[in-house]
Amino acid sequence: MSLTFNQKLNNIIQKNNSLVCVGLDSDFEKLPKHVRKEDNSIFRFNKAIIDQTYDLVCAYKPNTAFYEKYGDWGLNQLKMTMDYLRDNYPEIVTIIDAKRADIGNTNEGYAGFVFDYLGGDSITLHPYLGGESLKPFLDKTDKGCIILAKTSNPDSAEFQNLEFEGKPFYQKVVQNFVEKWNYNNNLSFVVGATYPVELKQVRKIVGDSVNILVPGIGKQGGDLEGTLKAGLTEDKKGLMINSSRGIIFASNGEDFAEKAREEALKLKESINSFR
Amino acid sequence: MSLTFNQKLNNIIQKNNSLVCVGLDSDFEKLPKHVRKEDNSIFRFNKAIIDQTYDLVCAYKPNTAFYEKYGDWGLNQLKMTMDYLRDNYPEIVTIIDAKRADIGNTNEGYAGFVFDYLGGDSITLHPYLGGESLKPFLDKTDKGCIILAKTSNPDSAEFQNLEFEGKPFYQKVVQNFVEKWNYNNNLSFVVGATYPVELKQVRKIVGDSVNILVPGIGKQGGDLEGTLKAGLTEDKKGLMINSSRGIIFASNGEDFAEKAREEALKLKESINSFR
Repeated sequence: MSLTFNQKLNNIIQKNNSLVCVGLDSDFEKLPKHVRKEDNSIFRFNKAIIDQTYDLVCAYKPNTAFYEKYGDWGLNQLKMTMDYLRDNYPEIVTIIDAKRADIGNTNEGYAGFVFDYLGGDSITLHPYLGGESLKPFLDKTDKGCIILAKTSNPDSAEFQNLEFEGKPFYQKVVQNFVEKWNYNNNLSFVVGATYPVELKQVRKIVGDSVNILVPGIGKQGGDLEGTLKAGLTEDKKGLMINSSRGIIFASNGEDFAEKAREEALKLKESINSFR
Repeated sequence: MSLTFNQKLNNIIQKNNSLVCVGLDSDFEKLPKHVRKEDNSIFRFNKAIIDQTYDLVCAYKPNTAFYEKYGDWGLNQLKMTMDYLRDNYPEIVTIIDAKRADIGNTNEGYAGFVFDYLGGDSITLHPYLGGESLKPFLDKTDKGCIILAKTSNPDSAEFQNLEFEGKPFYQKVVQNFVEKWNYNNNLSFVVGATYPVELKQVRKIVGDSVNILVPGIGKQGGDLEGTLKAGLTEDKKGLMINSSRGIIFASNGEDFAEKAREEALKLKESINSFR
């Protein structure tokens, strides 16, 4: 029997002693010049980053937007990256940051894309259509379903913080999902590092058995200490702390992968100093 | 200067005297057997459907899920379909039903995918992250941005109908977008044909200058008469009535494209009998 998403995540957190998730937002235009000239440049870039950081992370999180931007070629770069990860570092969790959600019938297609074609361990999902429509994802006992709760962008309050019966909407989303749709114990949530107060609320609602993906560290200016104080579980886990641009684009030169390692190591150690 | 989305839509509605949108949800597994055996089967299927229906429709709406399910190959089928449409039927509106939305920086990637790589006229978008994050789409004056309001799925009430200050959430979404984010007059909304009462409310909020995409006719059991009574503008336009499976999979045999034409014609005439 294969591991559940939560089991796999806990194993690698323990093995690598790390809550670091590296966001593979590998936009071709931002790759070092010498890499851009190569065939399969995005894959080669990712491979170099992965080979330099695999022992420092719990997860890799490619965001599909940066691959789809380059159409079928870009998607193939993502597929090669996922195959490489599975063949070489099968213990590391993969998060396909796709932010999908459609009606049930259509979500079957996206589940095929993320779990069958890409072979991802988990996917990020919009809550707007409700839990029932997400069953093609939620029904997969061995896959993680990561629901957007409070996103890291500066204006995420527009809808997410609307007050509903005295509580902000994002809390209602978390509450509904954790009470009604976690029947396979495979849910996690997204809360931006830019919102430690909200992160604390979400941790309170979901308890210590649910993992939270926290983007927004690095370029977006999220608060690492506040995030960890607000979101860590009693046993000092329960978070996947994502940094993308701050790690993968730490250098634009020949040393990009080594510099990425330095940044990943720095982040891992900063996090662990609060654990 | 190129036409705006609304201009292009109004032109083709007038020319073809039709509010029919054909959903190209062309799942490989559901194609007729003889088509599945061909190279580029999904594209060939779409081409046959398009060649038989182009004079009966105002729009084609491929849903990305059914293409991404087959990875880079599937995406290439979609690209070929979009190229074929642009080369042969440039007057017809294309809606990329992608239901995307991420933070602003990332949405640039999706805008590149949908508008540059695919060359689509419009995209469907989730509202959850707020309007500010959608600016990479909203800023494109010649492209349509179609915001999910009240989706067609049976359980869409879970969040969309939560009462906020005495009004359901989907109305708050529509109100915010139409008041704050329609600065390029390029917004439309999605309201399912399964919810004519809600459609009437949305029409009331947005007035007659905003178009509404209505999925849910056909297999999903939406109410055509109710939809038209609730949603048509004073000049009997303002709606794109989508049918997908009911048209493209009307027959599984050699005659699939002719049968699709029959169903599209039937839908066009049913709609026009209420206009």
